[in-house]
Amino acid sequence: MSSIEARLRELGLTPSAPFQGPPGLRLPFTSVRVRGNRAYAAGHLPLNPDGSLASPLGKIGLDLSIEQGAQAARLVALAMLGSLQRELGDLDRITSWLRVLGMANMAPGFNQTSAVINGFSELIVEVFGEEAGIHARSAIGVAELPFNVPVEIEAEVEIRP
Amino acid sequence: MSSIEARLRELGLTPSAPFQGPPGLRLPFTSVRVRGNRAYAAGHLPLNPDGSLASPLGKIGLDLSIEQGAQAARLVALAMLGSLQRELGDLDRITSWLRVLGMANMAPGFNQTSAVINGFSELIVEVFGEEAGIHARSAIGVAELPFNVPVEIEAEVEIRP
Amino acid sequence: MSSIEARLRELGLTPSAPFQGPPGLRLPFTSVRVRGNRAYAAGHLPLNPDGSLASPLGKIGLDLSIEQGAQAARLVALAMLGSLQRELGDLDRITSWLRVLGMANMAPGFNQTSAVINGFSELIVEVFGEEAGIHARSAIGVAELPFNVPVEIEAEVEIRP
Repeated sequence: MSSIEARLRELGLTPSAPFQGPPGLRLPFTSVRVRGNRAYAAGHLPLNPDGSLASPLGKIGLDLSIEQGAQAARLVALAMLGSLQRELGDLDRITSWLRVLGMANMAPGFNQTSAVINGFSELIVEVFGEEAGIHARSAIGVAELPFNVPVEIEAEVEIRP
Repeated sequence: MSSIEARLRELGLTPSAPFQGPPGLRLPFTSVRVRGNRAYAAGHLPLNPDGSLASPLGKIGLDLSIEQGAQAARLVALAMLGSLQRELGDLDRITSWLRVLGMANMAPGFNQTSAVINGFSELIVEVFGEEAGIHARSAIGVAELPFNVPVEIEAEVEIRP
Repeated sequence: MSSIEARLRELGLTPSAPFQGPPGLRLPFTSVRVRGNRAYAAGHLPLNPDGSLASPLGKIGLDLSIEQGAQAARLVALAMLGSLQRELGDLDRITSWLRVLGMANMAPGFNQTSAVINGFSELIVEVFGEEAGIHARSAIGVAELPFNVPVEIEAEVEIRP
């Protein structure tokens, strides 16, 4: 077992299965694009372990509390780890997290985007450690997200080719 | 003729001329930045073949249907291909699409950002083929876009230096 | 003194001190991530020289004029230059600006995001010169930004390792 997988098990965390969208959904892109020493993770959504969209959906500040938004961001991290694991074979190939763009579906007047996206960043640093897991990040409030999910996050990581 | 240019001709597609903004517009940036084996495409807008802004402008769900939004995203792809062609000399230098950030100008309550940005992604995969054209992608709804365009998309591609 | 530092002095510009957030703020990420020949700058905010959040806060078009928004974007550039200077030791290590994502906190109906983010782009080109400073850019209007700041900007630069 790889050391990151051991760490996930130790923390009781399970990367989720591939995204199961509604029937007929066209997704003409890939969840992770690998070239050379880089892997680009597409915008991921909060999923249940089986890959279905996690509840609650909606806007943070209206349909979800800030804490629920941060929990949704944790689920995004587990969805992204699932995609990276399937694409890379082994999460130990990730040598460094680089860049994270966190997009939160905020209700008008709610701007605690940092507190929401911390759910993602803290899980990544907890799993990969400070040295490999730390990353540059933006945390913004967007107007709409697909399927009315509360959070979508994309990332770029350095990998062993 | 390069193979991508042949493919564009076969599909009846014409990359558009450079963006013609309103008089006096300052654009202190470049539409494509090339360094080493990477080209970074700035946020591109939907253009007519002559480089003028394509109609309709406005918000998707209010001023445009989802289908019109997807058509606008196709025009963004043709605008970006025009910029890449001028900067790289030959679109065959693109060895792999990597990352796409699709930003749709959605009316409140409309969240079909995936269906909109598919207009861009599907054209790229159609032109470059699945292997080179597939990419990691985010599709988000933003609050406002320059000139009230319905879609803006940026991308990063791998190139032969 | 490095040539970029000399240039900053000539222009009367001072990169700002590290961001001083409110007490108890958790920031589980880094303002600049360096790997190989790349530095990724996190989303930076408009700061005073001492690192405190710059006034005015709020939405451009409502709480700030377009000109004040552009001035806030200039302050974001100085905040980012401060972070890059501390992380790289010397701003002369930056060989090329690559990609800039400018996110403006626009009031509904205000779409002059280009004019706002020009405050950032023009300062970077003024300091680094056209050849190294020019960059691919997107300028979008987002729904909410952390602490209700008017502008947040992230970037990627090429560096001498």
